Formats: sequence, structure tokens, C-alpha cells
Amino acid sequence: MSGKKLLKFGAILQGLGAHTGLWRHPDMPVDASVNLEFYKRQARTAEAGKFDLIFIADGLFITEDSLPHFLNRFEPITILSALAAVTSKIGLVGTLSTSYSEPFNAARQFASLDHISAGRAGWNVVTSPLEGSALNYGKDGHPSHAQRYRMAEEYLQVVRGLWDSWEDDAFVRDKDTGVFFDRSKFHTLDHKGEFFSVRGPLNIGRSKQGQPVVFQAGSSEAGKNLAARSADAVLTEHAYIEDAKQFYRDVKARAAAYGRSPDDIAILHGIGVIIGRTEDEAKAKYEEIANLVTIEKAIAHLGRFYEHHDFTQYPLDAPFPDLGDLGSNSYRSTTERIRRIAREENLTLRQVALRFVSPPGGFMGTPAQIADLIQRYYEEEAADGFFIQSVTPSALEEFVELVIPILQQRGIYRTEYEADTLRGNLGVPIPANRHALATTAADAQG
Amino acid sequence: MSGKKLLKFGAILQGLGAHTGLWRHPDMPVDASVNLEFYKRQARTAEAGKFDLIFIADGLFITEDSLPHFLNRFEPITILSALAAVTSKIGLVGTLSTSYSEPFNAARQFASLDHISAGRAGWNVVTSPLEGSALNYGKDGHPSHAQRYRMAEEYLQVVRGLWDSWEDDAFVRDKDTGVFFDRSKFHTLDHKGEFFSVRGPLNIGRSKQGQPVVFQAGSSEAGKNLAARSADAVLTEHAYIEDAKQFYRDVKARAAAYGRSPDDIAILHGIGVIIGRTEDEAKAKYEEIANLVTIEKAIAHLGRFYEHHDFTQYPLDAPFPDLGDLGSNSYRSTTERIRRIAREENLTLRQVALRFVSPPGGFMGTPAQIADLIQRYYEEEAADGFFIQSVTPSALEEFVELVIPILQQRGIYRTEYEADTLRGNLGVPIPANRHALATTAADAQG
Repeated sequence: MSGKKLLKFGAILQGLGAHTGLWRHPDMPVDASVNLEFYKRQARTAEAGKFDLIFIADGLFITEDSLPHFLNRFEPITILSALAAVTSKIGLVGTLSTSYSEPFNAARQFASLDHISAGRAGWNVVTSPLEGSALNYGKDGHPSHAQRYRMAEEYLQVVRGLWDSWEDDAFVRDKDTGVFFDRSKFHTLDHKGEFFSVRGPLNIGRSKQGQPVVFQAGSSEAGKNLAARSADAVLTEHAYIEDAKQFYRDVKARAAAYGRSPDDIAILHGIGVIIGRTEDEAKAKYEEIANLVTIEKAIAHLGRFYEHHDFTQYPLDAPFPDLGDLGSNSYRSTTERIRRIAREENLTLRQVALRFVSPPGGFMGTPAQIADLIQRYYEEEAADGFFIQSVTPSALEEFVELVIPILQQRGIYRTEYEADTLRGNLGVPIPANRHALATTAADAQG
Repeated sequence: MSGKKLLKFGAILQGLGAHTGLWRHPDMPVDASVNLEFYKRQARTAEAGKFDLIFIADGLFITEDSLPHFLNRFEPITILSALAAVTSKIGLVGTLSTSYSEPFNAARQFASLDHISAGRAGWNVVTSPLEGSALNYGKDGHPSHAQRYRMAEEYLQVVRGLWDSWEDDAFVRDKDTGVFFDRSKFHTLDHKGEFFSVRGPLNIGRSKQGQPVVFQAGSSEAGKNLAARSADAVLTEHAYIEDAKQFYRDVKARAAAYGRSPDDIAILHGIGVIIGRTEDEAKAKYEEIANLVTIEKAIAHLGRFYEHHDFTQYPLDAPFPDLGDLGSNSYRSTTERIRRIAREENLTLRQVALRFVSPPGGFMGTPAQIADLIQRYYEEEAADGFFIQSVTPSALEEFVELVIPILQQRGIYRTEYEADTLRGNLGVPIPANRHALATTAADAQG
């Protein structure tokens, strides 16, 4: 264990939750998804638990069948900026789509958040899985999965190029001589590519952590390659530890193949924890949540992941239908996982829908049981850390109060923040400015 | 004076300032434009002065000749969101371009800021005057002035339509029945226009003030029409009170012609205040600022407003050159004003450049003198209120400490906030949701 990095934790803040019935729980404020106090409380709880980061997911298209949280929620950049002002150590990571935004605007907003938070910003690069998103952006159609990932690669290059517009020591700011900046350390990008043409420079410099931390959350082949080549951290989710280990080995090996140190990319596994003083109490909490959902809501929720497919046409208690390629251009890895599990466990449509809407997960039990499982994932190299999802209204508080101290006692989790930047805590390197690198290389050759 | 609304104030927060030499002032933190503490302090000072709002301007293109503040500054949405979390009454207004952003994203971010701040958000609609902006957004060319305004009109329609996606009472949120929202109060926009095609609905509802307050800052014909038809407030600037009065009458008359009450549009006049205990002290402060600028910097700054025209080709002490139409597609009203003043006062290039970079303004003097002038503008209907620019590092603090109490004593400015929303304080109406209106109209006809 010597030399191995300590566990990392992120908290997914998602208001009413990624569950269609959670808003009905007696302890859940019904306006949680647009309630600043609720978000502040959760962010401060995560910071009290020395979490590396809070995470805000996103989506760009709704229908009347969308989850309550999706219908009426904060936009990531704005809520993260607000939380930056009321926290001091925790990282602030948000989703922004490379399919439906301008790279110049994205680069600026994340760089600005990085300055506001003094080096705690992170960007989760997504390509937007929902077909309907195109309709909100005047596009003829949603780009194919392959094209979205080509766009994402180029988009990320552009944003990172813009982030390096100013070298770290470009701002001289000498009041006596009147020299504000060194013109030789100010760089125009002049990018002209397949999808984007962006001149630059960006009108904001690098932060204390160099650049915002780049996250990637897709688990398809294209997603894994993007992550291995370009991301600082990966957010993933697997039903079984063996799948998680295989994914972990796979991404770390791909990173190495791209010439990177596997240590420089953090793999974080998303889990929904349900904690009870006893196993029975935990199970009772799960049942309470599961019972808040009707089968109609569960079926509608499932459809969202299959391009809003109407599942009411199938018998509920017959085997899960064969849907062919449906969903392969949207939530590809999710729909592939559902197909596999349905086949392997011989599940009906009703069973799939209810399990999918309220996944029991493996992280249900007493604090010690959950700590054991986390330690096992960590030690067996299934994950470098975890994203905690709020499966119950009090899950995050309970996790910080009951599970974190056990992990700290076992010496696998920090008792104090190592740094005040997100890169510093996650243990991922500060990328050198590409122009500073170029100068150094030229000097070395000269 | 009975029934007349009290004075309104906004503070333009702009870090190192809209002046090329202000950063060299001994009291100015050299990183002011990316310093959260500096912005927090200014926002809290303005809130202590019961200001209606703080305002963050913006720009999308820089060159090495840009003002120091423009080179490295916060992006408006992010810094406003951060300030929302550390203030409670003051409005939060920011610039966002209708030429270089997606209306769905703009609608979301301002609506989200409006929820984060509990009804204190405002959007300054601009069309981006700088030609070079197109290069940062992969566009073939910067749209013409006329086309930019046609785009802005349509963009604003789209955003306002998205903001009305949910009627105010759409979210039922009844835990017992499981009804989260009323489907009859959830509306798809389905906009298909000349420039934009946006389906909706927006994934966030209306705030406490209905919709963010819409500001407009262009003073061209097209700008005045956009303001009169669609804006809640106008930000303007005039060298002489007679010009301000004419603008005021003009915009109020245009609003009336569009069927609006002239009271429903607030006209705010931008001023740079320089305050001294004596007139001489104020003049000395002005000289201190003016002396921080070299003529080379002044000439370069002037060029920015003329499509980065190179003014070094003209003799400094000859009359200001005839530039034909140059600048008419960028900062049209500014370049027209410069041409007029240069001609009327027979100024040289040197005089124009120095005056333009450090405008002495009329709001320089003792607190009583400044209060008198403000009162005169207010009573003679030259302005409903003012935007205070930070011409010196301590201008805002001095204004709040020394001028505000005089205006309060004279009974023309509030001593306490009337409301906790921006609309409430500005005294502009909450727009009824268009769909609720439609229902009411149909009911009335039925």
C-alpha cells in the first residue's frame, strides 16, 4: 500500500435525485433541485467529509416523462459558481456538452470558475446522449455517436489550447514601468479543424491549478479512448466488481499506450449508498424508496434511455423485449448493460424497469459493511475512488458521519485536505503550458 | 414629485476599470479583474448603499492592445452566480451576446441565476460590437449592425418564450397523490424563425420575479427600438444633459408607441464619479488618473472602437481625421458621438484620444455638487437613475459613504430596499406568463 494514493470521493448533488420517486420521500424538500440552501448544505457536508469534489450532472432536453429533477433544475456552471463562493477546499465539477455549446464560451466559463474558486474547477466532457437535444439548438439532427466523439476530441483540444493563451508568468503588472503583460507570453490559438474554427486568445489566464480538471463519463469504446488520451479523471459505474476491475485495467492500459502514467488518471466509480445501523434498517430504507415509484413511472423512465421508446406496448411480465440497436446512438453503454443483465438473469420488463429505476446496488448495509466494500474495490484496483449518489435524502450526511471515519481510521482516506486545489487533492498533475513547453524544448535543442 | 419613483442606482463592477491606466493606481490590486474578494467587497459596498444592482459588462475578442481589464477577467454569468451566494437584496445583471451564444443556453443560465438569487437576475442584451468576435466562433464574418439587431429581437423572443415554459403554478408537487406537475401548464415553444429554431420546453421554471430583468445598452436607432419594444431597463451615456433628456423623451415615447407604459422602462445613465472633499481634491484625483496613461496607450485604445484602426498614421496635433463610415458597424453610437464632439469642439487627435481614455465627465466635485447634479438629471427627466463606474479605485465606497446619505436626506433615494427582487426594487412589472394570459383571454372570450 505504500505510495498508493488515498481514496478519492465525489458527491453528486442532484436535488430531487436520479430517481423518479425520491421527491415524494417525507424528508425531501419538494423544491430541492432549485433550492440554493439545499445545495449549500450538501456541498458543506461533502466538504466536512473532506471530499475531493462535488459534481453537477446535466441534460439538454426534457419531455413530460422526464424525471422530476430533470424538469426544473439549476444549470451546472451557475450553481457551481455560487457554491464556489461558500466553500473553500472542495472541487467543483460540472457537465457541459461538446455538441451544443461554443468552445470559446465553455473555455471562458470554466476558466472563470477556476479563478473564482482559486483552482477548484473541473469540467465533465459529455457529448449529450439525448436525440431531442438537437431540437433545442436548431440542428437538423443529433450527430452520430462516432461523430459526437470526434467533435468532443477536437472541442477539448480547442478549449485546452485557449486555456493556454497566457503563460503562467505572462502578467508582469509592473506599476512603475507600466508593463501589464509580456507580449511574448500571450498566444493566439488559430485553430482551424474539422468542426471548429477558433482564433483566440482567451480573455482569461491560467489559474492556480493550471487548467480545470477534465472528467469523462462515457464508457463506450470512444469514451474510453477519449478518457485515456485526454481526461484527468473518469466517472464510471458497474453492477459487478469484476466489470469495474476490467474497466479499470482497460482504461489505465489505454492511458499507458498513449504515453501517460496510469497514475495520472483517476477512475471514480459511481455508487448509491443506503446506510442503516443494521442490515435490516438499510433494507427498509431501500424498500421505502422503491415503493415511491409506480410501474408506469418506471416504464416511462426506462424509455428515456432508448430514445423515448414507448415500452407500454410490451407485456409487463414477459421477458425483456429484444430492441435491436435501439439506444445505441444515445446511452450506448447503459442500454448494453441493461440488455446483458436482462438476458443473464432472465428478467421480465417489469423487473428490469423497477430495478433500473431503483437500483439496490451493492452498497447497502451497515457503515462497516459499506466501508469493507469500498476498501475491497480500492485495494483490488476496481476504483481509485467513488462518486456518492444521493439515493436517500440523508445518504450523504450519513456517509460522512458514519462511513468516512471508518475509512480514515483504516488509513485509506485523508483526515485533512492535502491541497486547496482540485488537482492537488485528486493527485493529478498540473499540465505545463504548451507554449512554455515549446520554449523549453527549443532552448534544449538550441 | 408625488408618485414619481425614487432614484435607481447600479454599480458597474469592472476590476481594473474601463481605463487603460487605472491598474497602475497605488490603491488598485493588480489582479482586481480576477479577484473574487475584490468583487465581493464592491458588491457588498453597493448593497450597503441600497443600490438596485451590480452590473458586469463583457467582450468576446481581445488583441494585445486591449485594456488590461479586458485581457484577463471574470466571465459575467460565473462571477454573478458567485456574488449571488454572498449578497441578499441587490440585483445581479450581466451582459450576454445574442450573436455568439445559443438562446437555449442563455435562457437556462439566466433563469438558473434568477433561482440562485431568488429573483435578482438581469440580462443585458448586446449584439457584440467587435468584428473580431466572429473569429472566436467559427463564423465567416461579423453580421451587419442591422442583421445583429434582427437576430437580437428574435433571440430575445426565443429566450422569453423559453422562460415561460412553465406556468407559475405548474409545479403541484403533491407527495400524497404523486403528481409532480400539471401537464396543462407545461408548454413547448416550437419556435422556428429566421435565425433560430428552438423547440423547448426549458428545464427550469419561472422565478419569484417571473423572468430576469432585460437590459439594453445600445443607443443606435435599432438599439432604441429594441429597448422601447422589449427591455425593462436601458443603460445609456451622454456627454451633455440636453442629450440625455432628448434620449430619455425619445425612448419613453417609443415605448408608449409600442403600447407600453413609459414608467415600465427604467432609463439609467452611466457616469464616472470623482469625489473630493473640495473641488480641488476631486480635480487632483482626476489628474492622478489621467497621468497614468501614455498617449500611445490612448491612441491604441481609441482604435479598438474603430475596428482596430491604426491611428498612429495621423499627426497627433492636427484636427481629428475624417474616418468616413469606419466604426459604423461596431460601436456606432460611440463613434458618432466622438465625431460630433471632435467637430464641435475642434479637437486634435491627441485631445480626442486623451479625453476618450480618461473622460473627465461632469460628475466630478464635492459630494454635494455631485448630489445636486444627480438630482437635476432626475428632476428634469434626463434619467431615472445612474450606473456608477469606478473611475478611481475608491469611487464606489466614497459615493456610498458621502453622496448616498445626501440623496436619502433629500427624499429622492431609498433608505431601505422596497423588495427583495430586482423587479421589485427597480419598479418594473412582473411579466405575466404568456400561456396564463392566453388562458385568461380565452376564458374571457368564452
